[in-house]
Amino acid sequence: MVAGPPLERLSLNQATTEQLSLREAVEGCARHGIGWIAPWRHKVAELGVAASARLIRDAGLRVSSLCRGGWFPATTPAERRARVEDNLRAVEEAAGLGTDVLVLVCGPAPDRDLAAARAMVAEGVAATTERAAACSVRLAIEPLHPMFAGGRSVIVTLAQALDLAERFPEDRCGVVVDAYHVWWDPQVEAQVARAGARILGYHVSDWLTPPPDVLLGRGMMGDGVIELRRLRGGVVEAAGYAGPIEVEIFNQALRDLSGDDVLALLKERYLAVV
Amino acid sequence: MVAGPPLERLSLNQATTEQLSLREAVEGCARHGIGWIAPWRHKVAELGVAASARLIRDAGLRVSSLCRGGWFPATTPAERRARVEDNLRAVEEAAGLGTDVLVLVCGPAPDRDLAAARAMVAEGVAATTERAAACSVRLAIEPLHPMFAGGRSVIVTLAQALDLAERFPEDRCGVVVDAYHVWWDPQVEAQVARAGARILGYHVSDWLTPPPDVLLGRGMMGDGVIELRRLRGGVVEAAGYAGPIEVEIFNQALRDLSGDDVLALLKERYLAVV
Repeated sequence: MVAGPPLERLSLNQATTEQLSLREAVEGCARHGIGWIAPWRHKVAELGVAASARLIRDAGLRVSSLCRGGWFPATTPAERRARVEDNLRAVEEAAGLGTDVLVLVCGPAPDRDLAAARAMVAEGVAATTERAAACSVRLAIEPLHPMFAGGRSVIVTLAQALDLAERFPEDRCGVVVDAYHVWWDPQVEAQVARAGARILGYHVSDWLTPPPDVLLGRGMMGDGVIELRRLRGGVVEAAGYAGPIEVEIFNQALRDLSGDDVLALLKERYLAVV
Repeated sequence: MVAGPPLERLSLNQATTEQLSLREAVEGCARHGIGWIAPWRHKVAELGVAASARLIRDAGLRVSSLCRGGWFPATTPAERRARVEDNLRAVEEAAGLGTDVLVLVCGPAPDRDLAAARAMVAEGVAATTERAAACSVRLAIEPLHPMFAGGRSVIVTLAQALDLAERFPEDRCGVVVDAYHVWWDPQVEAQVARAGARILGYHVSDWLTPPPDVLLGRGMMGDGVIELRRLRGGVVEAAGYAGPIEVEIFNQALRDLSGDDVLALLKERYLAVV
């Protein structure tokens, strides 16, 4: 049997509690003994980067990652340049918040041409690396489930994310492993092992069958079919990852609960099944 | 520019017109000049195999495949044996209908153990091959979109389907390439090329963004984001496949239309964008 994860590695990805402001989420984490948080940029914008960083630090929390940069493909060079500019700002926000991990959701194709869009992603990442290095921020490419290939990311497998990340130095570019996005992949064990030190984050939720919704249908850990304990203990940690574990659940029912109820439940399930 | 497909290759997969009986679907195909049909077993059961075969033949149609066998994983050996028995019956039904292609949707895991379920699929296919050979029926493993990994198939990529098919002789076991299930895969070109003579069918529909439903949210060709013409002409035919092209669209809105409206529209879109 694989042992459960220590509470010290639990991180709240703020998408799980979209109903809370950053201040409310930080206070909730502190109240529930959750030591990490992964804020989203639109929540950080409520207070600004400096005040957000102070709020988090003063509560005794650390920032596991900033969500998110990416979204590189676009029809015109000017629009693609604007996307890169936004990523450069995201890099600086990550540094300002005191995290060295910027999660990249790479974006969909602006038309039907997947190959062209994938090339635009590679160009966008390349154009962001210099600023990232200057800020000591690592770019964490997150492959999304193929269900999101049309609307959110042309990067859909760990193998593909690693093919891209490996074009850059190991200390500058890596991947996020999200159980929901990769659990189905016959290659998941091999690719997580390949990723090794390039694993910059591990995210958990669960796969409900069938998903009640495409975007907001992720399940609380333990409510679905993913072998979460084996994946964490037997695969991701076996590859060397020992960092924070973000709970990132896009689920409307959770957003309709009180933040305290969500935090209590996710902490309980994290300890029981992750 | 890739030329459009000839009308002679168009096949109606009966899932597209679930509102029609087999008799109605056959009469509709004849009326609209569609020369192939892929019946589903629950529809064939309305008349029985012999009468269904006669009905289809008398209308001048041919059968591109029978849908479907598979669904191999189960908790107990007895239940798995029952699943194999059902597949042996499906093989005989395919032969009785005059097609040499039985589509296999391999089934989900009965629990969280994907590896065990995948082994059960391999055992199930192996246990079906002898009867298939005796009946001159080829087993066509269909990888489903990873969105269906929880509820319908632990076989989710072409690479994985081919790894399994290649355990058996080329003239006995192959794969179905369904545009909806494989379009997102960074490996799709390489794996279709690898499949070559093992391509036993090509299915088309389209990917709507976001999908309006997980099971019944496929789009009519041209309404979504799949590069259908390039995939057919530049990839599937480049690999040597010149057989029937099944239109298989699980979509509730289409099932709410008259069968004639659906057949007219799919024929028009087939010629225009496939």
